[in-house]
Amino acid sequence: MLLAMTSDARPRTRYRPADRPPVDLGPIVRLRDFEAPARERLDPVAWSYYAGGAYDEHTLGATAAAWDAFRLRPRVLVDVSATTTATTVLGRPTTMPIGIAPAAMHALAHVDGERATARAAAAAGVIQVVSTLSSYGLADVADAAPGGRRWFQLYVQPDWGLNRALVERAVAAGYEAIVVTVDVPVLGYRDNVLRDVFDPGPGAYGNLPQRDVWKREDEIDAILDLRSVALTWKQLAEIRSWAPLPMVLKGILTAEDARLAVDNGVDAVWVSNHGGRQLDRVAAGVEVLAEVVDAVEGRAEVYLDGGVRRAPDVLVALALGARAVFAARPFLWALACAGEAGVAHAFGILHQELERALSMMGVTEPAALTRAHVERADSSRT
Amino acid sequence: MLLAMTSDARPRTRYRPADRPPVDLGPIVRLRDFEAPARERLDPVAWSYYAGGAYDEHTLGATAAAWDAFRLRPRVLVDVSATTTATTVLGRPTTMPIGIAPAAMHALAHVDGERATARAAAAAGVIQVVSTLSSYGLADVADAAPGGRRWFQLYVQPDWGLNRALVERAVAAGYEAIVVTVDVPVLGYRDNVLRDVFDPGPGAYGNLPQRDVWKREDEIDAILDLRSVALTWKQLAEIRSWAPLPMVLKGILTAEDARLAVDNGVDAVWVSNHGGRQLDRVAAGVEVLAEVVDAVEGRAEVYLDGGVRRAPDVLVALALGARAVFAARPFLWALACAGEAGVAHAFGILHQELERALSMMGVTEPAALTRAHVERADSSRT
Amino acid sequence: MLLAMTSDARPRTRYRPADRPPVDLGPIVRLRDFEAPARERLDPVAWSYYAGGAYDEHTLGATAAAWDAFRLRPRVLVDVSATTTATTVLGRPTTMPIGIAPAAMHALAHVDGERATARAAAAAGVIQVVSTLSSYGLADVADAAPGGRRWFQLYVQPDWGLNRALVERAVAAGYEAIVVTVDVPVLGYRDNVLRDVFDPGPGAYGNLPQRDVWKREDEIDAILDLRSVALTWKQLAEIRSWAPLPMVLKGILTAEDARLAVDNGVDAVWVSNHGGRQLDRVAAGVEVLAEVVDAVEGRAEVYLDGGVRRAPDVLVALALGARAVFAARPFLWALACAGEAGVAHAFGILHQELERALSMMGVTEPAALTRAHVERADSSRT
Amino acid sequence: MLLAMTSDARPRTRYRPADRPPVDLGPIVRLRDFEAPARERLDPVAWSYYAGGAYDEHTLGATAAAWDAFRLRPRVLVDVSATTTATTVLGRPTTMPIGIAPAAMHALAHVDGERATARAAAAAGVIQVVSTLSSYGLADVADAAPGGRRWFQLYVQPDWGLNRALVERAVAAGYEAIVVTVDVPVLGYRDNVLRDVFDPGPGAYGNLPQRDVWKREDEIDAILDLRSVALTWKQLAEIRSWAPLPMVLKGILTAEDARLAVDNGVDAVWVSNHGGRQLDRVAAGVEVLAEVVDAVEGRAEVYLDGGVRRAPDVLVALALGARAVFAARPFLWALACAGEAGVAHAFGILHQELERALSMMGVTEPAALTRAHVERADSSRT
Repeated sequence: MLLAMTSDARPRTRYRPADRPPVDLGPIVRLRDFEAPARERLDPVAWSYYAGGAYDEHTLGATAAAWDAFRLRPRVLVDVSATTTATTVLGRPTTMPIGIAPAAMHALAHVDGERATARAAAAAGVIQVVSTLSSYGLADVADAAPGGRRWFQLYVQPDWGLNRALVERAVAAGYEAIVVTVDVPVLGYRDNVLRDVFDPGPGAYGNLPQRDVWKREDEIDAILDLRSVALTWKQLAEIRSWAPLPMVLKGILTAEDARLAVDNGVDAVWVSNHGGRQLDRVAAGVEVLAEVVDAVEGRAEVYLDGGVRRAPDVLVALALGARAVFAARPFLWALACAGEAGVAHAFGILHQELERALSMMGVTEPAALTRAHVERADSSRT
Repeated sequence: MLLAMTSDARPRTRYRPADRPPVDLGPIVRLRDFEAPARERLDPVAWSYYAGGAYDEHTLGATAAAWDAFRLRPRVLVDVSATTTATTVLGRPTTMPIGIAPAAMHALAHVDGERATARAAAAAGVIQVVSTLSSYGLADVADAAPGGRRWFQLYVQPDWGLNRALVERAVAAGYEAIVVTVDVPVLGYRDNVLRDVFDPGPGAYGNLPQRDVWKREDEIDAILDLRSVALTWKQLAEIRSWAPLPMVLKGILTAEDARLAVDNGVDAVWVSNHGGRQLDRVAAGVEVLAEVVDAVEGRAEVYLDGGVRRAPDVLVALALGARAVFAARPFLWALACAGEAGVAHAFGILHQELERALSMMGVTEPAALTRAHVERADSSRT
Repeated sequence: MLLAMTSDARPRTRYRPADRPPVDLGPIVRLRDFEAPARERLDPVAWSYYAGGAYDEHTLGATAAAWDAFRLRPRVLVDVSATTTATTVLGRPTTMPIGIAPAAMHALAHVDGERATARAAAAAGVIQVVSTLSSYGLADVADAAPGGRRWFQLYVQPDWGLNRALVERAVAAGYEAIVVTVDVPVLGYRDNVLRDVFDPGPGAYGNLPQRDVWKREDEIDAILDLRSVALTWKQLAEIRSWAPLPMVLKGILTAEDARLAVDNGVDAVWVSNHGGRQLDRVAAGVEVLAEVVDAVEGRAEVYLDGGVRRAPDVLVALALGARAVFAARPFLWALACAGEAGVAHAFGILHQELERALSMMGVTEPAALTRAHVERADSSRT
Repeated sequence: MLLAMTSDARPRTRYRPADRPPVDLGPIVRLRDFEAPARERLDPVAWSYYAGGAYDEHTLGATAAAWDAFRLRPRVLVDVSATTTATTVLGRPTTMPIGIAPAAMHALAHVDGERATARAAAAAGVIQVVSTLSSYGLADVADAAPGGRRWFQLYVQPDWGLNRALVERAVAAGYEAIVVTVDVPVLGYRDNVLRDVFDPGPGAYGNLPQRDVWKREDEIDAILDLRSVALTWKQLAEIRSWAPLPMVLKGILTAEDARLAVDNGVDAVWVSNHGGRQLDRVAAGVEVLAEVVDAVEGRAEVYLDGGVRRAPDVLVALALGARAVFAARPFLWALACAGEAGVAHAFGILHQELERALSMMGVTEPAALTRAHVERADSSRT
């Protein structure tokens, strides 16, 4: 049933980006600056697929605005001459507590896809999480940047043989952790995907068989394909048995599930609303981050994605208790703008922003941030 | 005094919609997509009558925004392979916990009026509530779709003989419940109705005598006709005596009245602000839903209308304790766009949205939603 | 020093409105509908003078929005067949609990000025409060509509002989109460008044000597003329001794001052921010109404102005404890649109709105509204 | 290493304002009125440098809006005939509790730079705080207006000889206090500064050696030059030993640091977010003012800057416990509009606004304002 892809196969997608010279990175001084030129370069359907959310996109919008509910509390007159952005995640070093969240099909953004992303991430010393739905195969991505830290994000498929094969391939290719996505029992209802009848075409996925998954009788069901509808806590143990790697659960939004996760021996809980692409009217990650951190009680690391764009956002999340944060779209835009160089530029910006921000907070490393460094914007201490 | 209408009589309205081919339903992927094309097809006065609210329309606007105050709390890693949208309402099955709220004169939207609505609702397996002010008579509507579940909404008129006749006709035509509207002792002050001197013309109502109700001396009094100005709790018993059917009270917004309702033996309490068309500066239904549910203490079912447009809205209401929700305007727009097929398409969308949303919430049926699945957006659990 | 005006003298103002036929009142169904045509008819400087507020107009804007913080709680199934808008204020009947707040120089809006306003108010059976700065003299206004209820608003001037003369003239002309404005120790800083160098010209005031008050050395001081800079509680007793009439204090915004007012024997406390024209960043009246009502403890009546435009606003204020509400600008716009007929139309609208609103609240008279009929919009009873 | 500047040297900047006749001050009735004409006259890069903030400018925007969270509580019937705006700051008189906050390079706004500002401030009787980065040297500024009150703002440089020289020059030139900026261990990440590659050119600073500081290898590091990265509490004692002057710490945002400041013997704590130009997502000063005032417990004076534009803002800050407030940008705009006359006009406006506002608050001097005169806008006293 699996249709092997040769490792040099280029992904074939119907929404392949135009072959244009890279954007001038000079005027790009923040991650959001990548967005407009990326949009201009991407196929409109690919843009819509990346940028859109589920249902009325309340959650998508709220995820950007939710940060405004928090305020940093900077301390002064601290010697910050030795400030570093470096920290450890899952016990190993990273240059920054920010990594690349998994996103499907980087080749919609740039022909080099996840291979370009991998090279930039490895050069920057940050973690890349590669999606089950990556354009290039797991080994291809690893080969592109041997020294990098890489995790594998697993969409549990109905075909358990495939699930196991994917995990084993990740282990073989040196991936360091399995990130199991738990918020996609079914795909979210996405207006834009339905309107555009989004279909990247066979061969768009580097890890999956080349069947044409979209052509079914019921068009909506075809486009919004069922995923891990029957995945439960007890099956996690089986997945874990396939690989001697830490397991991260991505898509937790409640204290109850966070507690269950650590009770089930998970190594890290990743707070996420899936980029606003699954259920609408759920919280932005940062809104429930403290709830989850408190429930975990230090028994696992906690990560967050959702609207992280600038260093002050990172500081808020870390002060609330996240060990690291992740983002996906900004790096897709950077990839679309200039391939590997774009993503590298993005991390260059983040490093500058973060080092300064830590110093202005009066801390010398990410791990020194505490709840005393953050408060709700509407709080009154008087 | 009653002027009988023959069952094949077409309603005559001054604001009859243009006779145009149906809208292409392909690009319509959410209920709100019906609105713009519907507006284009409707007589402007009919549109204004349907869409408008009372006084400054604060409540009309607040009803849409009120949902944003709530947040869903989805649970993960639950086996949702057997998720169903089906539930029971008043002890009988419905395919979805969402039905068609009563609205006057569907023939302003489409020549087939409530008959088309009825066919679509029956096919979808949902409840239709037919208004006293329907374009077609109660029996006509029932005849159009014999297998459907239908309730009769009663505006208590000054003429008690007419009230009784209406209820008895509903019983005879197989309607399953009497929904007594209690928030219209007088009609709300509606600027647009006054500006447009709204008057659908004699013959616009299938259940009422063909008198020309609007022509009175005082124009404002004529247009904003008095209704059940003297209706009180003790008269409900009389209405109930006319029919061996469950009684629903529509238009409750306080715990006090909810308690009185169940003390008076009502079978269900319907939380509603009448589409923002009666008193302004009252709550959106969802804002007082929990208050009402708590007051009812399980002694009656609770329903809600007001701004329900997408599955996540439905989930919020159900988690707060509603047994079912209703909407009116979206189905009028669907009716205006494509008659029966439009309304059918609307329910197709809702079913897709709802089934996915339930699965993403980690529940397998509507009745499994609880208060733990929802919280106020400004709440902090830390 | 006083320069007597003959009673038939027309006020002379530099910003006299254009002599044009009255606006068609047909399409005007709410008070706000008067505003746009009024603006078109008024001299731009007169418009700016009426419409503007102090400093950055935060308070002016907040006064309109503050009502949104409150929600009505309507009760159903009450017999409201005998609903009346009538009530008593200061022990005497009024057809509605809404009156005309004092505003300077009605002749900027219409050549008949306060005489037209008086006739409309008397015909409607409501209270008119005539300003010290009225265009027509107190007796002239009274003569225009002998049967009406009228109060006199006193700006305490540096010239105490003038103050006393004004009060005695009010008594002689049958005014029923003295409304002492207490929030104008100095005039508020009003950008528009300074920009336009507002100066209505000598003869603009019917009650004041015809000196040319504006021409002083320091232009800002001239335009923003000092008023009752040294007025204190103990001088109130002297003012009271001049007239056997109830005394109302207008411009109270705190519980502390409300308590002092009743301790000083005042008959009514009028909560007001002076139309946002005095100090900026103060509360809208409705925001502090409950605070004032609670402080008064029933020992005096409480009135309110500030942003009252529609019946639901009136209900909110009454439910919070006001005995009556007042408005000024809407009646100036009505006056500008059609003179006496415009103001009469405004009260016709208000009566319709209010009678319906009371019925929909489930009360049969204004005095039946209680705190149980209102809540803060952000309150949660669960 | 220091390169002496002769006292008559004109600052040389690449962004020198156009040499145009002054703006007509007649229509300027509030500080914000200076902004638009100033923008028109300034070099776009200079405008951007002055007006911009750090990162996404959340804090810059929040600083303007934060005032809306507070409401003044005015008292009436107080004799305010003797109201004065005068008060004392650091034990010496000032005509108003508002002064000029330090800002770099006034010569970007007007060729006379800080010398013009100094003359206007001295004439108005208010405090001017001169920046380390002033266009003119400290002595030049002092010479321009001998009678004025002036403080020196110190950016602690890596070169401690320079720091000491600066302080000693300030003492010699009669400056009354040393304001140590503590929120710039590194410069904030400012998008506009990076985009424009802001570089005023050698000779732009009157107090600093004429090295060309911007040309370094790493362009971002060059533009966003490191400052007092290793400054700590214990070094403050050394700075203090250089001058027999009061020490003010500028840039405190937390109770913790306020407490440390008074424990370290500081004379005044200046609450500031550095005009939104350092770390983003921190509080507006007014939001944490009460927290700081409470922590200080009267052991030092507290000042505030950030969004002060009108007298009601000043009153809010004073009622919360500030002894004085400061602003920078409005005076830069005034300077750009009309040089010394512009700044003088700004203080004329502020005096008018403030005297009236105090009277309307029912207080006769700034020091009479208390916490009872202010409340949070969302507070409810009932």
